Amino acid sequence: MPTERTQLVRRAQRGHYDPAAVHAVVDATLICHLATVVNGEPRVLPTAVWRMGKEAIVHGAAANGLLTTIAGGAPFALCVTCVDGLVLARSAFHHSVNFRSLVAFGQGRPVDDLEEKRRASAAFLDKVCAGRSKQARMPTDAELKATRFVALPLDEASVKVRDGGVRDDEADLSWPCWAGVVPVEATFGAPVADHGVTAAAPSGPFCI
Amino acid sequence: MPTERTQLVRRAQRGHYDPAAVHAVVDATLICHLATVVNGEPRVLPTAVWRMGKEAIVHGAAANGLLTTIAGGAPFALCVTCVDGLVLARSAFHHSVNFRSLVAFGQGRPVDDLEEKRRASAAFLDKVCAGRSKQARMPTDAELKATRFVALPLDEASVKVRDGGVRDDEADLSWPCWAGVVPVEATFGAPVADHGVTAAAPSGPFCI
Repeated sequence: MPTERTQLVRRAQRGHYDPAAVHAVVDATLICHLATVVNGEPRVLPTAVWRMGKEAIVHGAAANGLLTTIAGGAPFALCVTCVDGLVLARSAFHHSVNFRSLVAFGQGRPVDDLEEKRRASAAFLDKVCAGRSKQARMPTDAELKATRFVALPLDEASVKVRDGGVRDDEADLSWPCWAGVVPVEATFGAPVADHGVTAAAPSGPFCI
Repeated sequence: MPTERTQLVRRAQRGHYDPAAVHAVVDATLICHLATVVNGEPRVLPTAVWRMGKEAIVHGAAANGLLTTIAGGAPFALCVTCVDGLVLARSAFHHSVNFRSLVAFGQGRPVDDLEEKRRASAAFLDKVCAGRSKQARMPTDAELKATRFVALPLDEASVKVRDGGVRDDEADLSWPCWAGVVPVEATFGAPVADHGVTAAAPSGPFCI
């Protein structure tokens, strides 16, 4: 159920609050934007995000300011956005973007247990590139201790979806310009191997 | 020059503070994430962003809560992120993402003048699709009044760039997995015309 801060006010029909919809957006893309408040001022940074069960996971250097603030109990706002298309209407006013976006609010849970960090590392790698955790040299205890992981609850979250076609006003339908949707997708170029690599390049699927 | 909140602390060599670097990131992609503080709590939303001179411009419905808050003087944090590649290192620890990201802080300036709003609308359309402002039915005064535009200064901003290849530790160089960079780019599918459109589809360039 939506809360006061997740309830969509305008275009409420575009809102979804069920865990399946929330989890699907976290799973669909690698990058999130994570915000918090420091000295009354907003802070926001991009970082990788993945999911373990009902939580989103983020990580970074142990000294990372934003993660340290959130691990210390400051409230977070998490946003995950997938852009699916440019909507070119006949009228400037109805130009839009097809997208799926998630906003979640709450307080983070520091992940300190080394075994949980190890599982989180594997889940991250396997999201970036399927099967990668079976191939890469997985983290040592020292590396895990140098990395801060924070779990972000997803139970206070909303998803907003804009899809479909152009929605021009009736009066504009005879305007003579092209109108429609230009689909957008992230694509991956040919992998560029590091020096000395002899193993075959992975074929993915990759996630970005 | 960096301020206390824009100075990169770790990996300071990845930081850029000159206007050309800042403007280039705003110009490179359509979507930003915009954060502010409401009742001491963080808020963040995705929205389209473009640039007019030294300012970034965002817009939305006049009743949009986040934009209304920022137009009313609340401090903002703006983040613009372009993802350029997945960095698959031999070690899990050195997996990374090639990216360009901008963070800017400040207070917004409400754009209320109809002529300035009109120019901003044209600049937005032309960023989405080159030349679009010459084709679409441009906004009426009523539509401009129903749209809130906010200009965000870019003078307190930093850009962080991670590029190039894998940076594994020497001890891992003989690890037998593939390592390298998988390039990422946003691509556009074939435009899907709305019903009744007879004009030719635009060929772009589009921006996302």
